[in-house]
Amino acid sequence: MISRLMEAIRAKDAPVVVGLDPNLSFIPEKLLQESRAQAAAEGRTLTGQACAAEAILRFNQGVIDAVCDLVPAVKPQSAMYEQFGLPGLVTYEKTVRYAQQKGLIVIADVKRGDIGSTSAAYAAAHLGETVIEGRAERGFDADFATVNPYLGTDGIKPFIDVCNACDKGIFVLVKTSNPSSGEFQDVKTADGRALYTLVAEKVREWGRLSMDGRYSNVGAVVGATYPEQGKELRALMPEIFILAPGYGAQGASAADLLHFFDENGEGCIVNSSRGILAAWQKPAYAANGEADWAGAARAAAETMIEDLRGALRDRRQ
Amino acid sequence: MISRLMEAIRAKDAPVVVGLDPNLSFIPEKLLQESRAQAAAEGRTLTGQACAAEAILRFNQGVIDAVCDLVPAVKPQSAMYEQFGLPGLVTYEKTVRYAQQKGLIVIADVKRGDIGSTSAAYAAAHLGETVIEGRAERGFDADFATVNPYLGTDGIKPFIDVCNACDKGIFVLVKTSNPSSGEFQDVKTADGRALYTLVAEKVREWGRLSMDGRYSNVGAVVGATYPEQGKELRALMPEIFILAPGYGAQGASAADLLHFFDENGEGCIVNSSRGILAAWQKPAYAANGEADWAGAARAAAETMIEDLRGALRDRRQ
Repeated sequence: MISRLMEAIRAKDAPVVVGLDPNLSFIPEKLLQESRAQAAAEGRTLTGQACAAEAILRFNQGVIDAVCDLVPAVKPQSAMYEQFGLPGLVTYEKTVRYAQQKGLIVIADVKRGDIGSTSAAYAAAHLGETVIEGRAERGFDADFATVNPYLGTDGIKPFIDVCNACDKGIFVLVKTSNPSSGEFQDVKTADGRALYTLVAEKVREWGRLSMDGRYSNVGAVVGATYPEQGKELRALMPEIFILAPGYGAQGASAADLLHFFDENGEGCIVNSSRGILAAWQKPAYAANGEADWAGAARAAAETMIEDLRGALRDRRQ
Repeated sequence: MISRLMEAIRAKDAPVVVGLDPNLSFIPEKLLQESRAQAAAEGRTLTGQACAAEAILRFNQGVIDAVCDLVPAVKPQSAMYEQFGLPGLVTYEKTVRYAQQKGLIVIADVKRGDIGSTSAAYAAAHLGETVIEGRAERGFDADFATVNPYLGTDGIKPFIDVCNACDKGIFVLVKTSNPSSGEFQDVKTADGRALYTLVAEKVREWGRLSMDGRYSNVGAVVGATYPEQGKELRALMPEIFILAPGYGAQGASAADLLHFFDENGEGCIVNSSRGILAAWQKPAYAANGEADWAGAARAAAETMIEDLRGALRDRRQ
């Protein structure tokens, strides 16, 4: 699967993934009205959760339509759907399917991880299939999932088995983008190294179990907000593809990200969520007002892609 | 919320939580047949996922009916529901509601954790409420949730805010029960201590933000399979209630658990999943065959409760 992601990045010349984390405050009021109107026309009564969930599906579809020729992938964040209960999860599933129909690779940002048998169920749920009375059925069936390493190898191995059986991939949290990520991840171990470097070594070991060309189907999450650690981790994990959140709204720039890429300008994909989804609320993209929220998302994605292309071009020269 | 759990444990004299991790292999064939028959009677066609999910709901309701006068709480494991897609999550939600109607406290074993704004959405989804157009709506609304600490304070704080706002609780993974839990959790830090002791200190710090009587609404997961670490962690975290998985099928005994309890025989609740759910498949409880799966679950729960009561009684003498 990682080779498919790399081909898609090359084809679009855009190492960019759009994070589909649709906070309700990003959703234009009009989409809530449309959801209510359609439900009324169909004789359905809509709970608040269902109204929000249907409006978010409209929003996601609009964003996907606006960016699907520009970027290789989207990354829905499951928390943002779970908070609307079952209707939210219906929207999550429909979002995954819609993005895949539009040719996009889907990274399920679920950050799951548990003891062995339970991780196997999570891997089946999000990437693989569950056997029911002798027949295998697909679950949410994303292309990649994010995974938490705190429980060690036996929590990760079931995901790798599914990567191999179903041609999927994972990104393991190594150094996250948030301000307090250092509390445990940066802890100095007895031999003077930071904990995240031990996690990185394990990720490399796990990566060898699912190689797919130059890179492994086992990737790593490294926050764009930590450029020094990104440089260190790029060197420590030469076959590990990096998913880098934190660009834009969380404060990282293209310059911060240069060393996350390999010598060919590959090996990394950068996520932006709010910066693209909520672009219509920012003065720079607000020329056409709320009605043009999808155009604003497209313009913001183009700006981000140009920013990264420019920085990678400058580095080559 | 922790004081409510402690009262319920006292009232039933049973520091036991039944893990509702219904692997399909534990579900008597009859329940799948009943689900299909009911769907046919109602003119519904059932996918494999929906058939499994409806059979699991029947199973959970039977287990809950069988144990609700014996134990204070149940712990559904979300992976086991997510693997059956949306129908699985319908069963998850109905299981939470059914258990609460039967007077049980529900610990949602979701092991979520993310950066701040995303953790806030997870906390709203599983414990709290989401505001939609000015109206607050409850999500899955369990009483406790398990949480992963790898992202540090800003991933935990939003859960604590919901604990305080909605009278809920969390259990933070400190030392998990699985064989490879030591890979990162036991890493020796520069001052010679294991990483899990640093996590324990943070949990104690977080715990002070939501005290509820002698214990905090912020608890810890400590695997029953690591008795020495349990003893150490009990001493390190005097106000932190421990959720201990790993009894029975994972190999821990009542003797292993004694030091997880405080001097009053409180401060810990022990989980068993497979040992109770799949009791009907074990020779010791199979006298009445598959038809008596609920009776076998009740008998296994009684045995476990007696085992723990006996060990705690012996310690007092």
